[in-house]
Amino acid sequence: MAGELETLRKQLDEINLRLLELISERGRIVQEIGRIKGKQGVQKYDPIREREMLERIKAQNRGPFSDATIVHLFKELFKASLELQEDDTRKALLV
Amino acid sequence: MAGELETLRKQLDEINLRLLELISERGRIVQEIGRIKGKQGVQKYDPIREREMLERIKAQNRGPFSDATIVHLFKELFKASLELQEDDTRKALLV
Repeated sequence: MAGELETLRKQLDEINLRLLELISERGRIVQEIGRIKGKQGVQKYDPIREREMLERIKAQNRGPFSDATIVHLFKELFKASLELQEDDTRKALLV
Repeated sequence: MAGELETLRKQLDEINLRLLELISERGRIVQEIGRIKGKQGVQKYDPIREREMLERIKAQNRGPFSDATIVHLFKELFKASLELQEDDTRKALLV
């Protein structure tokens, strides 16, 4: 039983790092989008696009997390991404 | 420029779905751990193990998100996972 738990924990650790990689990759793409929008003078926060993404994600959700939980987790990620873009804007203004 | 933005957005959508898959896979592993712990009568919330996971994740973080943001995002995921285990326990008690 302890061995089984150990195996599952190792799997969790691996998934955590894969999640970190994907979240970071996502962050870099969001930064790039922010730079393009910045040049175009376009508003960075786009609630319609955000809703579209959430709908697509929910449509693919097969559990075990509820749609509400998945939406909550992704909203936290979107919020962090927006902060990343705002930090970049501030840095650009300070140059 | 619009084409570039479109390409980046498609990449985001793909990453979102890969994140959903990983989060769901992680949820199933956590449920399995919960079942084993339930049989052993062991407490499900394990702050030491949680801190260990966070340390490992932070050690691998190369940005663009700050360690604080990454820790926040993973803590939300851990919280959702614990709720998943608690739901399973409640369902088991009702059977």
